[in-house]
Amino acid sequence: MSRFKDRVATVREMSRARGWDAVILTNNDPHASEYSAPRWRQVEWVSGYTGEGVIVITGDHAGLWTDTRYFIQAERQLRGTGIELHKTRVQDQVLIPEWLSRHLEGYDEVVIAVDGLGMSASAVAEIREAIGPDRTAIANVPDMLSPLWSDRPAIPQTPIITLGAETVGWSRTQKITWIRKWLRENGHDAILLTALDEIAWVLNVRGSDVDYNPVVISYLLVTPDTVQWFVRKGPLAPDDKETEDSFHELTADGVNIQDYSDTGMALSGIVDDDYVKSLFVDTATLNHDLYGILKENVPRGDVISGKSPVALRKAVKNEVEIAGMREAHLEDGLVMEKFLYWLEKMVQAGEPLNEYECSLKLHELRSGIEGFRGESFETISAYGANAALPHYVTPEEDSAELYANGLYLCDSGGQYLFGTTDITRTVPLGPCAPLEKEDYTLTLKGHIALSKIVFPKGTAGCQLDVLAREPLWNSKRNFGHGTGHGVGFYLNVHEGPQEFRQNFNKQALMPGMITSDEPGIYREGRHGIRHENLILCVDAGENDFGRWLRFEPLTLCHFDTSVVVKELLDDSEVKWLNDYNERVFLTLSPRLPSDVAAWLRDKTKPI
Amino acid sequence: MSRFKDRVATVREMSRARGWDAVILTNNDPHASEYSAPRWRQVEWVSGYTGEGVIVITGDHAGLWTDTRYFIQAERQLRGTGIELHKTRVQDQVLIPEWLSRHLEGYDEVVIAVDGLGMSASAVAEIREAIGPDRTAIANVPDMLSPLWSDRPAIPQTPIITLGAETVGWSRTQKITWIRKWLRENGHDAILLTALDEIAWVLNVRGSDVDYNPVVISYLLVTPDTVQWFVRKGPLAPDDKETEDSFHELTADGVNIQDYSDTGMALSGIVDDDYVKSLFVDTATLNHDLYGILKENVPRGDVISGKSPVALRKAVKNEVEIAGMREAHLEDGLVMEKFLYWLEKMVQAGEPLNEYECSLKLHELRSGIEGFRGESFETISAYGANAALPHYVTPEEDSAELYANGLYLCDSGGQYLFGTTDITRTVPLGPCAPLEKEDYTLTLKGHIALSKIVFPKGTAGCQLDVLAREPLWNSKRNFGHGTGHGVGFYLNVHEGPQEFRQNFNKQALMPGMITSDEPGIYREGRHGIRHENLILCVDAGENDFGRWLRFEPLTLCHFDTSVVVKELLDDSEVKWLNDYNERVFLTLSPRLPSDVAAWLRDKTKPI
Repeated sequence: MSRFKDRVATVREMSRARGWDAVILTNNDPHASEYSAPRWRQVEWVSGYTGEGVIVITGDHAGLWTDTRYFIQAERQLRGTGIELHKTRVQDQVLIPEWLSRHLEGYDEVVIAVDGLGMSASAVAEIREAIGPDRTAIANVPDMLSPLWSDRPAIPQTPIITLGAETVGWSRTQKITWIRKWLRENGHDAILLTALDEIAWVLNVRGSDVDYNPVVISYLLVTPDTVQWFVRKGPLAPDDKETEDSFHELTADGVNIQDYSDTGMALSGIVDDDYVKSLFVDTATLNHDLYGILKENVPRGDVISGKSPVALRKAVKNEVEIAGMREAHLEDGLVMEKFLYWLEKMVQAGEPLNEYECSLKLHELRSGIEGFRGESFETISAYGANAALPHYVTPEEDSAELYANGLYLCDSGGQYLFGTTDITRTVPLGPCAPLEKEDYTLTLKGHIALSKIVFPKGTAGCQLDVLAREPLWNSKRNFGHGTGHGVGFYLNVHEGPQEFRQNFNKQALMPGMITSDEPGIYREGRHGIRHENLILCVDAGENDFGRWLRFEPLTLCHFDTSVVVKELLDDSEVKWLNDYNERVFLTLSPRLPSDVAAWLRDKTKPI
Repeated sequence: MSRFKDRVATVREMSRARGWDAVILTNNDPHASEYSAPRWRQVEWVSGYTGEGVIVITGDHAGLWTDTRYFIQAERQLRGTGIELHKTRVQDQVLIPEWLSRHLEGYDEVVIAVDGLGMSASAVAEIREAIGPDRTAIANVPDMLSPLWSDRPAIPQTPIITLGAETVGWSRTQKITWIRKWLRENGHDAILLTALDEIAWVLNVRGSDVDYNPVVISYLLVTPDTVQWFVRKGPLAPDDKETEDSFHELTADGVNIQDYSDTGMALSGIVDDDYVKSLFVDTATLNHDLYGILKENVPRGDVISGKSPVALRKAVKNEVEIAGMREAHLEDGLVMEKFLYWLEKMVQAGEPLNEYECSLKLHELRSGIEGFRGESFETISAYGANAALPHYVTPEEDSAELYANGLYLCDSGGQYLFGTTDITRTVPLGPCAPLEKEDYTLTLKGHIALSKIVFPKGTAGCQLDVLAREPLWNSKRNFGHGTGHGVGFYLNVHEGPQEFRQNFNKQALMPGMITSDEPGIYREGRHGIRHENLILCVDAGENDFGRWLRFEPLTLCHFDTSVVVKELLDDSEVKWLNDYNERVFLTLSPRLPSDVAAWLRDKTKPI
């Protein structure tokens, strides 16, 4: 542990030497990706804590800010580092801007050091604003930790593939035409895209630069006449034929490929052109460093920040994407049922089996699907009390043994050339305690309520979120994470702009959006439960009261009914559960081995 | 009808003569009160339309903007006036600022005439912003219509009474001390209160200057050393001993009483003082005219706008106020049960009876309560299809006859010296159609779901609103109004800042807040249903998952169960309904005449 205490001390020393009052360290890559490559995991390097969060180091304090999902993990991993945990998403939370402003209250002038690559322009602006713009100097130090971090990994560079319109519905030419129309209609001369999934969507390219997220580290500039893609273009590995082919295809479509390391310089030149009077950027994903360069180099115009139009367009899946997602969920469902069958047999036979072996088995099964490209996130395979950590990381070594009692939770998903999946099932491995059954059932009630709601067009996810919580709330239980996130098409498993969450996100749900429905409950030291399907928003017709929408579950895998407390369900919930399980059986059984199909028949019999 | 066509023409003429491109007419008094005295009902004067809304008159268009509640009424009353209905709170609504900006798009310079007394500073600012601040001139014309409106009523002046701490919990001295503390903590030198209910709350005064709202037309300036109340101070009516006594009491408490008509001039002098560097106002209720005067007269400082702190403080009732509200609901419940008993007997006996006679009966019964000060809003007494207008105004003449079938809706409330009530009951007068029963039951399910929810501290009303809609939504039905509003203590029946509504109001619900729970359903030409109780937010304890809140119904009046479709209710809903009705019976029956008590016993037997 003292290794990390030393690292904090080193950062503090550097800080003192350079006259900084506070240093902010993030795990962010230069694109504000949710997950980042090892190169950018500065929080992890300095603290040893492997979850998400942000670290602030001042002369007399070192703190980690993270949310409810990571409290238990952070408390464990920060032991002995001298870094204090600051809880977010709790009542009376004090977020970093406010904390800094209070902590540095006495100072006339304050210097805050940030790695401008690792913080979005808007995050830096917010901190400046909170402390007071007049007395705050931001020291922008790109790659701040490189001098201290001797074995710092390089920027990732992985093979790039392209997807055709037969897979994604819209060709890149159609997408670029749509962006140019948007530029015209909104009076902008150019747009710089910085979010990696948005760039992958526009160009119909995929890579594996970020674990689980099939994206390519790059920037994309679209003007009325040009498309410039700033990407790690070479030298390519000798056997990387895929990337070479992809570059040829893109070039043929009019995409000008430039090197990622030249982005700043090249952009300065481009936007210095006469015609760029209004350059549109999204400062939520544009990093502070590049924003500074742009601001200096659009002398005859303005850098206008707003919400990138790509995010919403990407979230509304077209018919081809929806068909692909259905196919992915069919394949993934077959895998899940085979896995759950195997799991039950193993446990019942008393075979030694641990959490990590389960995730390996699941990986092996998914690997058998043609077009499988890897997991969509790290599998959470958690038995008993381990499942009480919503974002539990299953250790490779000494992971927990499974026994024929209590609940096992598995949250996993696959990336396929034709879609992305994300599913959680919590299954009994044998006898369960009454509280486990009750929690299981109440959480399922919440899952069902959200899944079967019919709602007026224009409704936002935050207006529906309570449906998934009501059964838990009414018995004074709750969960500390959002109820659902958008999911990309063979792209990031977490995407916006819609979500189910207790916030005030006004984004309306729209037909074609795919979102997870995953209420849970977590009891430290006891058990954890989560029920997750992906649900597709579809039209539900119009009547005197207006236009209606509803959801359709894409995920195909039965919910175990043996631990359901039937008296806690009303008739419509029992019907939903029986109908769903029956649909799972009818859809999957023809393609399952006969022993698994027979088992599934039994598992899906009506309650 | 042509009378109103002529009035529109007259306004247009004046407009042309003075070079205005658009005139905006509101029903607002100078304090942005929800209801206003007849003097300020300019929309009504020009159009004959008696609901809420705003009128815009340009050279070639006259339009009324109003929301779903008033569509049917507006369509009826605007017939023949040439004024077009613009619908708000609907999808694709175009609100006035946006409409003006589009309609006046061609113009280089635009002059918008407003009666600065009838529009809040923020509403005017929003319009300027939408059209473009550079090309928009606002012509502020206080009392614009006075030259055309020959018999325009005077500013109301009614007797003023005071309430003691034994009734309201906090003395005015305590409240002023609290405001001064708030000023210190927030770095302001003075606060100008402009919302009439906030002023009444601070000074513990009540009047009847606005129908149903027991407020006094006035402004209140609080500084660290002075309290200045600008009010219609005289000459008082010779027999108005109450006001004289109130003025004496207030003066003794250090309140300096000045005349309402001197407000502008007096304020100019006061804020011109050296020490006023920061004058706090709430531009949501401060009118444009007075805001202009202030802006010109705080030369050494700033007029800072924000949310008045009084609104939230007032919404959280103290123990004394809660006790008073309970008492008010007990008295009001006795009245309601006597009324419903009388109604049923009359209808069953075949006695001729119309909607207006029902509201008279209800008034007569409430008048028998000591401390009754009048209705808290105009009683909605609506039979059959008339109830499909959520804000139906029961006509005095030729109101509809009641027959022994279908549903009758009554929405009413009382102002008492010790509290305010607001209750809606929808009752069957005889056989009902299956759709009436189904609508009745689904709406009741929604009412119950919101009433019995347990929720974490920090939850906002907009996050709970869907609970009241879910049962309706799931059968593709809905209602076009909010689910609930805050209610004052012997003050306005509609108050903020909390509410249940499909918006993104972040105000958390807090123990002590009193809010209505009133889902409904309206079928034009058929029937209207609404079930409304006032519910008090109370603490529900703390556990591992955090602190919990819940609601307690204050309203005491049974829900008719004869038209409930029991199969549509789950066990917990049946239990809630039976428990509630039983509580109503046990609480009220000892104080009801024996025939009414016996009838209520029958009405409240468990289903």
